Amino acid sequence: MSTNLSRAPLSGADWFAVEFDPATRAVVMLDQRLLPAEVRYERYQTPDEVADAIRDMVIRGAPAIGIVAAYALAMVARDERSDAKMFLVANGTAGRILNATRPTAVNLGWAIARMSRKAGEVCELEPEARYQGMLDEAEAIHREDVASCRRLGELGAAEVPEGAVILTHCNAGALATGGYGTALGVIRAAHAEGKNVRVLAGETRPYLQGARLTAWELHRDGIPVEVITDNMAGHFFQSGEINFVVVGSDRIAANSDVANKIGTYSLAVLANQHDVPFTVAAPWSTVDLRTRSGADIPIEQRSRDEVATVGKMTMVADGVPCRHPAFDITPARLVDAIYTERGIVRPKIGERPDLLQSLQS
Amino acid sequence: MSTNLSRAPLSGADWFAVEFDPATRAVVMLDQRLLPAEVRYERYQTPDEVADAIRDMVIRGAPAIGIVAAYALAMVARDERSDAKMFLVANGTAGRILNATRPTAVNLGWAIARMSRKAGEVCELEPEARYQGMLDEAEAIHREDVASCRRLGELGAAEVPEGAVILTHCNAGALATGGYGTALGVIRAAHAEGKNVRVLAGETRPYLQGARLTAWELHRDGIPVEVITDNMAGHFFQSGEINFVVVGSDRIAANSDVANKIGTYSLAVLANQHDVPFTVAAPWSTVDLRTRSGADIPIEQRSRDEVATVGKMTMVADGVPCRHPAFDITPARLVDAIYTERGIVRPKIGERPDLLQSLQS
Repeated sequence: MSTNLSRAPLSGADWFAVEFDPATRAVVMLDQRLLPAEVRYERYQTPDEVADAIRDMVIRGAPAIGIVAAYALAMVARDERSDAKMFLVANGTAGRILNATRPTAVNLGWAIARMSRKAGEVCELEPEARYQGMLDEAEAIHREDVASCRRLGELGAAEVPEGAVILTHCNAGALATGGYGTALGVIRAAHAEGKNVRVLAGETRPYLQGARLTAWELHRDGIPVEVITDNMAGHFFQSGEINFVVVGSDRIAANSDVANKIGTYSLAVLANQHDVPFTVAAPWSTVDLRTRSGADIPIEQRSRDEVATVGKMTMVADGVPCRHPAFDITPARLVDAIYTERGIVRPKIGERPDLLQSLQS
Repeated sequence: MSTNLSRAPLSGADWFAVEFDPATRAVVMLDQRLLPAEVRYERYQTPDEVADAIRDMVIRGAPAIGIVAAYALAMVARDERSDAKMFLVANGTAGRILNATRPTAVNLGWAIARMSRKAGEVCELEPEARYQGMLDEAEAIHREDVASCRRLGELGAAEVPEGAVILTHCNAGALATGGYGTALGVIRAAHAEGKNVRVLAGETRPYLQGARLTAWELHRDGIPVEVITDNMAGHFFQSGEINFVVVGSDRIAANSDVANKIGTYSLAVLANQHDVPFTVAAPWSTVDLRTRSGADIPIEQRSRDEVATVGKMTMVADGVPCRHPAFDITPARLVDAIYTERGIVRPKIGERPDLLQSLQS
């Protein structure tokens, strides 16, 4: 496959969700809507194109959309060559457009805020230096995300039992991050340590990120994976097959409540009912200490047709509404561990919110 | 739509899952695989065609497949015109083929056993009288199923709160029975009583019986229904929106453990966690007193492709296995009520297995 990229990916792998191509000064993304049938990389030239791509699910995953938003703001600096004020206005406008694409993932707002601070620092420089400063910051966000995933992956992997059957949900993998992955980072690290793990990937309706993306990327890396429909999880908990659960997150509130892909809460209840550890893997950029609890996290409501239409076939009779909350909230009391690059938080045994806040340096 | 039927349906409705057409002496079934896009009735002329149709999911639902198996055995009597012994052999052979199509639903074996007893009674009669005796028995099974659904529907409806939002799973409706439905019978009766109920239908992967069938039949009857993906149930329990759960069953063991469509167990755990009544609606033909507990109920394992292929598109990368248990077991301790035409069993509060057995007349 052609990656459309003039240099080696920052992620260190030979495939990726998002990279920036310095030669053409454009974003390159794998169109995740086409997986697993087709691996196609596309070039995105403007911040508006990137915003559309986030909204349309070309790219998804909280850390990944933060990274691509940062690159989009580097493209603003590429294009806005007039004075400091005009540059800051253009940066602010693009930031607001990007931030409005998905409400739940806090990494988006976090990356935009960080890029805006950088914009303030570089706004008085010459246009080319300004662009280079913004691009350096976006690349730093990307590199740090990969490093964070590797670090939190190691921390989590240390807690995965030898020979574990691990349930995961949605895709919290290399495709959802700058590379390596959060939940799949834990699984990759456990596999790399020779722990002989096996994965059950919940298919994750309606978008099927588990079936389409998680199965694809784990199989590609030679990690044993089987797909189940989301409603099978209870059965495999009941049969004792599942030993460990790890998922990603789109936002973690100050009290350790966790927002993640719809269906996560059900898995947390089932895991707790069956005394199976329920854990969350997320970089620190996912922790939002300004959000007090899960009740304060906005839940994105997406369209009926994304539920009613499955693989291009309409499965629901005309006139019947569908509900589509895209995320849910898992309360801290059901979470055994949150793996971050700064350390492990253990909400269930009460190491919250103090530890979470103490980890904030 | 043409129903291909020369008389009014036994179910009393103007549409149906299965009927027998005495004029052509053949089974007529709605091909449920095509719903909701197309309402197409097809004629099935031989027991083998019926067995294939059950295996291929043209018809599904424990009571409905019992009824169609009974009609298939009437067709054996239609065709086997020689002596009593040959007739009994033909009946036995067809019964074994039909019984092997789906292992979990006990109604299939129940209907075949009942038809075989009738075969013993009528085997010495003239071929035409033999056929008539077998057809009468099959029609009795069909009529009794409709009457049972109406009766258990009334019993269940009395327990549905006014204005309830009711969660159901899979399709336990007119399409799954001789007409009216079990779980949807409870909902139809509550609606008919003016209880102002609203339904959340879990889509029920992989076959999407909830999205395709339950939404279609409730919408057709003017009962408010919305479709959710299975993994949203936890979220709507958590938000307090769901007040009542009612599902069907494929087999109820003597200790009140309930086999039903995969995903039911997860809903039962969630309902119990949120203090929402979890109830089961099933005719007495679903109760299998010879099966001691859920552990003794065979769980049908179906093919990978039914999970990997969604709406004709392959959603899972080549080489990745999928698991596909088609049913799960909900333990009696999670079941608030079982509505049968003979009365209500309350497993959770300990009215089991004695009451269940006392109900057996």
